[in-house]
Amino acid sequence: MRLCGSTLSLTILSLVFCGRLACCLSPLDLKLAGITGEKLNAQFEALAALSDTPRPSVTRLVFSDWDVKARRLIKDLMRDAQLKVREDIMGNIFARWEGAEKAAVMSGSHSDSIVLGGAYDGDLGVVGAIAAIKALRVEGFKPQKSIEAVMFTTEEASRFNVPCLGSQGMTGYLNDHTLDNFKDENGSTFREAAARIGYRSSSNQELLRKAKVDPAAVAAFVELHIEQGPLLEKEGIDIGIVEAILAPSLLTLDFSGSGGHGGGMPMSHRNDPCLAASELALKAEQAAFSTKAFDTVVTTGIWKQEPNIFNAIPRNVHLEIDVRDTEGDRRDGVIQQIFEAAEEIAANRKCNLTKEIRYAYPIAKSNPTVLGAIQQSADKLGLSSKKLISRPYHDAAFMAQIAPTAMIFTPCKRGLSHHPEEEISLKHMVDGVKTLAYTIAQLAGSAAPSQAKSEL
Amino acid sequence: MRLCGSTLSLTILSLVFCGRLACCLSPLDLKLAGITGEKLNAQFEALAALSDTPRPSVTRLVFSDWDVKARRLIKDLMRDAQLKVREDIMGNIFARWEGAEKAAVMSGSHSDSIVLGGAYDGDLGVVGAIAAIKALRVEGFKPQKSIEAVMFTTEEASRFNVPCLGSQGMTGYLNDHTLDNFKDENGSTFREAAARIGYRSSSNQELLRKAKVDPAAVAAFVELHIEQGPLLEKEGIDIGIVEAILAPSLLTLDFSGSGGHGGGMPMSHRNDPCLAASELALKAEQAAFSTKAFDTVVTTGIWKQEPNIFNAIPRNVHLEIDVRDTEGDRRDGVIQQIFEAAEEIAANRKCNLTKEIRYAYPIAKSNPTVLGAIQQSADKLGLSSKKLISRPYHDAAFMAQIAPTAMIFTPCKRGLSHHPEEEISLKHMVDGVKTLAYTIAQLAGSAAPSQAKSEL
Ligand SMILES: [Zn+2]
Ligand SMILES: [Zn+2]
Repeated sequence: MRLCGSTLSLTILSLVFCGRLACCLSPLDLKLAGITGEKLNAQFEALAALSDTPRPSVTRLVFSDWDVKARRLIKDLMRDAQLKVREDIMGNIFARWEGAEKAAVMSGSHSDSIVLGGAYDGDLGVVGAIAAIKALRVEGFKPQKSIEAVMFTTEEASRFNVPCLGSQGMTGYLNDHTLDNFKDENGSTFREAAARIGYRSSSNQELLRKAKVDPAAVAAFVELHIEQGPLLEKEGIDIGIVEAILAPSLLTLDFSGSGGHGGGMPMSHRNDPCLAASELALKAEQAAFSTKAFDTVVTTGIWKQEPNIFNAIPRNVHLEIDVRDTEGDRRDGVIQQIFEAAEEIAANRKCNLTKEIRYAYPIAKSNPTVLGAIQQSADKLGLSSKKLISRPYHDAAFMAQIAPTAMIFTPCKRGLSHHPEEEISLKHMVDGVKTLAYTIAQLAGSAAPSQAKSEL
Repeated sequence: MRLCGSTLSLTILSLVFCGRLACCLSPLDLKLAGITGEKLNAQFEALAALSDTPRPSVTRLVFSDWDVKARRLIKDLMRDAQLKVREDIMGNIFARWEGAEKAAVMSGSHSDSIVLGGAYDGDLGVVGAIAAIKALRVEGFKPQKSIEAVMFTTEEASRFNVPCLGSQGMTGYLNDHTLDNFKDENGSTFREAAARIGYRSSSNQELLRKAKVDPAAVAAFVELHIEQGPLLEKEGIDIGIVEAILAPSLLTLDFSGSGGHGGGMPMSHRNDPCLAASELALKAEQAAFSTKAFDTVVTTGIWKQEPNIFNAIPRNVHLEIDVRDTEGDRRDGVIQQIFEAAEEIAANRKCNLTKEIRYAYPIAKSNPTVLGAIQQSADKLGLSSKKLISRPYHDAAFMAQIAPTAMIFTPCKRGLSHHPEEEISLKHMVDGVKTLAYTIAQLAGSAAPSQAKSEL
């Protein structure tokens, strides 16, 4: 009886998506037999081998030689799933399965990594999307909407000091000015580095115009990713259903003073930027606590002191402060508090201050329909699940600005990510990819298949 | 009349040193004609050319190829002054002029430099001592006490992260344990690096034993040096007479915490070492002010944050805090305040703390007789002078622990030192070296010269 009830509710859900009564095979009736831990694992290992540093670490900066090889491997996987591959002017890679409707349900993630990162951050969502779509194809699913797998260019900020360049370009968050500001340590702009591996554009304007996608072309977006936190593992939960992604913002501040010999300059004559920066780091922490919200987080991650010699009063301290929240206004209030504190501290300590918001991206709230599809998929697979928010950002945060979006999280060992020991069990791999497959299928909806018709 | 009075007082001073009435030519009657700006400048330029980096900067780390060449040049200058050169097991170089008594008035400084330093820090006191002694010889001065020029090995901390190794060895401030701890960035100990250029020792014990000088062999020590501060230039004063050298001490502290993703970890779960370090830097400043003494100075010169990534909560912050004062007890009280604050902060923030006093050297107070000789010398030369303290440390700080010691400062342009633009005028060079020559001569005293006897 329970089984019948379950089947009924699933049938009703499928109606929401195909809009026709009993006309189609329910996406949740698919077996997804093609999705196995062995196959997935082999693909992750093949990708992980494309790295500047030896396993278990993965180092694959965007547009590096290894990135070029990873792109080739990913396009091979896409073609193997009989998808039509195209690449945009920024190097975002799309693999399309034409449905009855043009608008596509998209799913994917990134495959670049930080220096000495792990094998699953990003790759899970790329390999997983292709594997999920291949499984749907193999079992004869006919999508109403089109379906696309996507690999975003440079989600990590490791090379250009800014996250999600590919999805930012697709969703219109880049502009001429910012594009020129993002440079790697050799001074190459994104556009110059992209051109070197064949993604050529004649101007920033051309790049920006051609990268942008038409929101009407994206019916929904869903991204599978490791949690990058310990919550799911600790609570023994199989699937995280991401309701919101914290809005990242990054402040850069430089306090500077006259310096001098640490032995030679009396205390009262100093304008020491290290002390100004110390006061600010503590004020930034207070600003985070001042909202009384669990979701407000502030991190003074970067501290660069110059000349950084034991007997020299610092001349400059460069700070980068990461501010995130689930509410945009609240986050912006925290930024304002930090900037006001910095002005006051600089005035009191007679330091010079330069400050800038490097970026302050919008909050991403998940779409209820996409969340519902994930929930139904996990339930169907008998997996435990939990709603949560993502504190790390993802390309999904930008996609959410132009399309109904949500994310699926899988547990990762000890919550470790951005770390060579990043790890995920075969079971969680399979659970994640199957949940993704069902979610994509539900969101795309089943076109009236000849087989289903014949059964009527 | 004024002149006569002056001559009288000088004669009385010379009596203090030779202890015989009207038996000897007063050292202050010497002409010092051999000391000219042109000659001195040529020697500084020759030394400055021995550098890893082009002029105006000087980079000459101890035991580097350039240091070996500089040592050769300095020994040539010593021999040219007809002094007998010897080197000790640490590479300290001595040039002796035998007087009637064995105990020597010593004068010298260092000739190593920091990376991108200038041409006069140290070199002024080495070249100056040799030039001063040569001038005394040329004019037929016969010293009662012996006279020695000295070049100390590695006053700068640039290679082994610890200052004044040569003078520390000579005065017994090194021990087996510390000697092994001081390593360069390639992991070489001082003893290994010294052996590579020929200063060989079979064990730490041998090095320590042989480096140590007998205090009875040092009648007095005087060091000529640029001020490394703006005071003399600002006030238009020719000669600084150094009454005390601030006692340097260096604290190293490491706060560590669990780290984590700056987006992923709620504020209340963090144990962020950057915030602990910020609190400590401010407490260290308060500790300096708490003594209400102008001479207490505390500098958090080094701040190394790891991993120093914008979206990662720091896992470790390494601080090096320089603490100096003119009173040893007061300085040690400040160190204690800083360490107690660090313990409390680490406990409150649940950070791990390791802390160490890398070194805490004794205060150096100048000797009244040596100060008096400098004062008389400057007065005789018609130079304006001022008593002051040295906030930077010098080899003289260690020599002061075993012998009557003082320092002579000359103005340097804009107070700049440890800087390629370090500069000193020809006039101040000559004034400094002449003051040094008279001071050495007075401290050594005049042996009954045949010429003086014949005049009686
Ligand atoms: Zn990722
Ligand atoms: Zn020096």
